[in-house]
Parts: sequence; C-alpha cells; structure tokens
Amino acid sequence: MDLDVPPRVGIVGGGQLARMSAAPAAALGIGLRVLAADASDPAAQVIHDVALGRHDDLDALRRFAAGCAVVTFDHEHVPPAHLEELESMGVAVRPGPAALFHAQDKIHMRQALTDAGIPCPRWRVVTAVPDVVEFAAEADWPVVLKTSRGGYDGRGVWVVESAAQAAEVLASPLAGGAQWLAEEHIDFVQELSAQVARSPHGQAVAYPVVRTLQAGGICSEVVAPAPGLSVTRAVAAQEIALRIARDLNVTGMLAVEMFDDGYSLYVNELAMRPHNSGHWTIEGAATSQFENHLRAVLDLPLGSPAPHAPYAVMVNILGGEVGNLYSAYRHVLARDPGLKVHLYGKEVRPGRKVGHVTVIGHDYEELLARGRHAADYFAGVIDE
Amino acid sequence: MDLDVPPRVGIVGGGQLARMSAAPAAALGIGLRVLAADASDPAAQVIHDVALGRHDDLDALRRFAAGCAVVTFDHEHVPPAHLEELESMGVAVRPGPAALFHAQDKIHMRQALTDAGIPCPRWRVVTAVPDVVEFAAEADWPVVLKTSRGGYDGRGVWVVESAAQAAEVLASPLAGGAQWLAEEHIDFVQELSAQVARSPHGQAVAYPVVRTLQAGGICSEVVAPAPGLSVTRAVAAQEIALRIARDLNVTGMLAVEMFDDGYSLYVNELAMRPHNSGHWTIEGAATSQFENHLRAVLDLPLGSPAPHAPYAVMVNILGGEVGNLYSAYRHVLARDPGLKVHLYGKEVRPGRKVGHVTVIGHDYEELLARGRHAADYFAGVIDE
Repeated sequence: MDLDVPPRVGIVGGGQLARMSAAPAAALGIGLRVLAADASDPAAQVIHDVALGRHDDLDALRRFAAGCAVVTFDHEHVPPAHLEELESMGVAVRPGPAALFHAQDKIHMRQALTDAGIPCPRWRVVTAVPDVVEFAAEADWPVVLKTSRGGYDGRGVWVVESAAQAAEVLASPLAGGAQWLAEEHIDFVQELSAQVARSPHGQAVAYPVVRTLQAGGICSEVVAPAPGLSVTRAVAAQEIALRIARDLNVTGMLAVEMFDDGYSLYVNELAMRPHNSGHWTIEGAATSQFENHLRAVLDLPLGSPAPHAPYAVMVNILGGEVGNLYSAYRHVLARDPGLKVHLYGKEVRPGRKVGHVTVIGHDYEELLARGRHAADYFAGVIDE
Repeated sequence: MDLDVPPRVGIVGGGQLARMSAAPAAALGIGLRVLAADASDPAAQVIHDVALGRHDDLDALRRFAAGCAVVTFDHEHVPPAHLEELESMGVAVRPGPAALFHAQDKIHMRQALTDAGIPCPRWRVVTAVPDVVEFAAEADWPVVLKTSRGGYDGRGVWVVESAAQAAEVLASPLAGGAQWLAEEHIDFVQELSAQVARSPHGQAVAYPVVRTLQAGGICSEVVAPAPGLSVTRAVAAQEIALRIARDLNVTGMLAVEMFDDGYSLYVNELAMRPHNSGHWTIEGAATSQFENHLRAVLDLPLGSPAPHAPYAVMVNILGGEVGNLYSAYRHVLARDPGLKVHLYGKEVRPGRKVGHVTVIGHDYEELLARGRHAADYFAGVIDE
C-alpha cells in the first residue's frame, strides 16, 4: 500500500458498525467513505464522505471503491462475485472474498472448520424431514435448523423438537443459493465470544473472551471478561479464534461465537467485522475493535487489546414504546455519570437494536444492574 | 430546549477541537454542524454537516445557526456583536457573549478576576514606555507585555527586560480594539491547567488538575494529574476554576491556566471551550472534555471526569520536516501498541500543532518518554 498519503478506507454498508468506525478513522487521520443504501442510515448521518447505493449493485460498488485503498464491510451481504470484481479492479478487499464466504455460507463454514479440526456442534446438510429424523437419531432432539445463507440476529434459525416441527420449518421458502443445515443442539451453560484482529502480513491480537447473553436470538448483554471462565478455557477460546483467523486467512476483526457446555467449547457462528460482542472495547480497552479493524485492513501494526478495568459490561438498547430516545437523557445521565451511551440514529422499532450502553469497573453484577437499568429506561420498560 | 428530537449543536470553526467533538456527538446521537472557513479544515474533512463560511461574516453565521439548537465555538474569535445578533435570532449561544468576552479580551478578564478576588499576576493597562517603567518599578523586570485581544499559542505575548525592549514591542501595530497590558512575570515552578465543565442550570464538574509544559509559547506536553501537586494545592486550583465558571457565568468547558510559584497560584489565561490541556481526557477519563462540552451546552447532566489510570500523558505533535505523517505509522504503532494517536488532517508546517499522542498508565516518567518518542518520530526529529 502506498504510504505517501493517508489512505481512504471504504466501508460497504451504512449501519452502526460503520458509524462507530468514524471516531478511530478521524483519530488516525485516514479517509473513511461509506456506501449507504439511504442518506438516513446511521453512518451516513455522521460521516463526511458518503456514497449512496446498494451493496448488491455492482456499478454502485465500483464507483464507491474507486479511490479507496481498501474496501471492508459493515455486514456480510455483498455477493462474492461482486467482491471478486472489485479485486480485479485492483482494490484491496479485506477480508477477501474467499475468507468472507465462510461468514456468508454456514455450510461452507462448517465444512472448513470440520476440515481444520475446530470443535463444532455435529451438523449435516438436510433437504427433507427424513434427513432431520435420521440426524436426530444420532444427535438427539431438539435439533437446530438453519438456512445456510441470509440469516442474522436469530433470523434463519429454528429449534425443532420433532419431525412435525421440522416439516413446518422446511416448508419455509429458501433464499437463492441457500440450503438447510441441521445442527446438534448444545445444552450450554454460557455463550462466549472470542474476538481477534489479524492483518494481511499475519500479525494477530486476541481480546479478552466475553460472555454474551442472547434474548430472542438478539445479543442483549456482554460481560468482559466472561465471569468465572477459567484461564485454561479462556486461552482455549482465544486459540480457536486465532487458528480460525489464520486457517481461513481472515483480515480485520473476527468474532467467534461459541457455546460452553461446562466441559467443551463448540463454535457457533463467525463474523468477519467488528461485532456486537466487542462494543465494550470502545471505552473498555486500549484499542477498540473499530480501530483495530481499520489498522488490520490497512496492514498497520495492531493496537493493544488490554482492558482498562477488571470488567466492562455492554447492554444493548432495543427499541420499545418510546420513539424519541433523547427524552431519556435527563434521567439516565443524571442517575449514572459514569455510563457511556451510544445511540445509532435509527428509527425506533420494537426489538430493533437502536443503541447500547457501556459501564466499566470492578463489580460486574453492579455494572450489569446499571447497564440494564439504563437500557430499560431508554426502551420505556421502566420509568424511574 | 425541546426534548422531542435530538438537537443539533453548531460549532463555529472547523479546527481540531471541532473535529474531536465528532465522536461524542455521534455516540450521543445528537446532530453536529460546523462552520468551517475551508472544506479542508480538520473538522470539515470528517463531519457530515459542514457549512462553509467565515466566523466574522454575520450572514454566514446567521445561515449556519438557523436550525441549530445551540451554537458553540472551536475558538474565541467571533465578534461579540455577531454573537448578540445570533442570540436575538433565538439561538442559544454557549458560552454566552458576556461570558465569552472574558476569553476574548485580556483586560476585561483581568478586571473581572481582580474584582472577584481571584489571584492574578499584578497587571496594568499601558499605552507607552513610561507606563511600563513605572509598572516595573513596582513589579520588577522582566515585565510581560500582551495585546489584550487576538493572541494565541504564544502570539501577542512578549517578555521584556528593559525600557528599550518595551519600546520595541510597543512599536508593533495593535489589532482593532486591542490595548497593551503589562503583567508581572511570575517565576513559576510549574504551569497548571484546571478544567471544569458547567451547564446553564449550574451543575459543574472539575477534572484532575494537570501540569502543562510550553515550548515557544505552544503547549508541548501535559501530565494528568500534575505530579507531586499536593491535594491542598490541587483543590485550590479546582476551586478557582469553579469560582470563575460560576462568577463569569461560563457554560461549557472552561480551562484556567495557572502559574504555580511553589507558594501560590496565579491565573494566567482562560479558554471557554475544550482545550489542549484536556486532550488526555479522550482516552484517560470516563467522560472526555469534548463530550462534557456538548453535554454542558445542551444543559444535559454532566459526565464523570474520573480518570481511568493513575496517570495520562499527552504530547503534541508539532510539524517538522516530514510532510506526510502517515509514513511514521509502521514504526510508531509497532513500537508502542498502547499509544493512542490523533492526527488532525492539517497540512504540516514547522511548529504547527498537527496532532497529539496520549498514553495512560502508572509511571508518568515512562509515559512521557513514550509520548515524546512518538511525537519526535512523527516530526522527523528522530528516525528510530
């Protein structure tokens, strides 16, 4: 990469991940351009250099990428063929299409991890109910059914208890290119996320392993580091994430979501971008996931992932009955001067991720209580 | 202020202070508009909502302010009459023109502080050499000569040792409305800065008092908190800053620069905006000065000024021989993964503030060595 001028990074997608990338880009003095579908998208509201266009429109992608030293992503939805087109223009695409395809297609991901000897739940491609019944004979009910492509935040995932329930799910239409995947249901004691950053020349750093809590398939809160996780298990989780990053040639941030059943770890999902489980790093770590993603895709030396405090807690603000989040500020900020609020500028819809709060300190139970209170107040679930 | 929609804050001036305000504005989900003289100004490069125009052009200010809930500042140079015009439009101007005038006119400031019983160096308005000689008979040589308006970063300040030197300075042309001010030269052991945030309804928070080091009239480094400063002296400095904020009805951030001669404190200068002596708060405190300035001018509850670590050190990057600061990144970032870099997107000119670095930790001497090394490498003073 040319070091004579500060490079411009292009982010495809104008969501909250692109929005939160603006601060480290400005601090580093590098250019930042987003491709946003709409001028009201979270990132398009705050970033200076906005291109309007869809992530699946090749012409829009081409115009957007011209003048960017490197293109990276707010989400996983850009068609692989389009990414190869951008590469053929001479634009660095990071993570590259071959790596990113593992985050786009769950069957491709499961096969690659299985080939590499990474622990996963048992899995099988299925096309009809008898396949599911046969799989359940081995892995037991309930069975997790997933579409191989297009799911996120719990969409595209069903837990079925019987052949009849499986039949109902398999009757749903599949998106183009998607197949059905059956997975063993892991009876976990906690869900973990291990995040690493990796640069093209192979430097990698691992963040503390965090505990995530999902509600209705959506991440609701994160505690960093995972309370009570043994050092052995934490290091094992970091080693799994580092191996995946290397074996799949990931560049940028990688989040590996895992199940911990009290005995073993099982990889659930991969995300090759900054991830909800790493929002705590903005205030809680020396280098945020957003900064390390930018450094990594630019092949700059990575920053320290060391935490600032024994614990950081992040709680998502989900849309509720209150349309105007700003109206909560007088109460929420006065009640907790140490609370950090991030609102994404999104229209409030019930259950939609519209922001998050972070608190750092020594006692994670106390931090959780503070974070949940603020998130509940924003959502209108409580009014005092 | 209407709480039904997130308000828009307008910042007059497109420098680095406005640029560094973008991150907390995006996090808080409030609108941010800057009035920048040029599209290449530091803030105009990164902020979405940019109005181009000069800070002394009343029509430009009026157009800019329409649609802003509150107008605040990147610098002190807007003519007071223009600010009164904006207020008469119904725009909240914070700090208000009457408060801000103390930061615009040093004679006005000295008189107000003297009336309030705040400790200052001895001072006198002078018009000719005999006035300076008379003052020196009381306060002794050397004497500090200042223009009452228009100086910054050491400009508009001279230290003279004799009547002949005073005559040379007084022969310089004065800007419109400016007068000459003679001040006692304080033989200080250190310079301190005490920062507070104050909101219109009177809430105030005080940051830890920091030690500043000036080189050639420009701030070169800051240690927070000031090493070895007794609690008694630190509290006295905070009380002076809180009193000034209250007595002068300041809203937003106030920086009070002081001399410490080992026995007493003397107020040197005031700035009613985020200030170079508070850049360490971005990574070093729970709430940055930029966030608390926005909260204060919006009359929102203020955030905690508590530090994250025992010490934070900030070193300014001054322009040197190297035009492209990005070329230093491979070395600087690889050498120190915990270092935080802020580049302002300014064209490099010798001696110009083009960025800063911050490090936080336990040993301020070690932090200073790391910060100075990075700043020197960026400037091209060292090459390893």
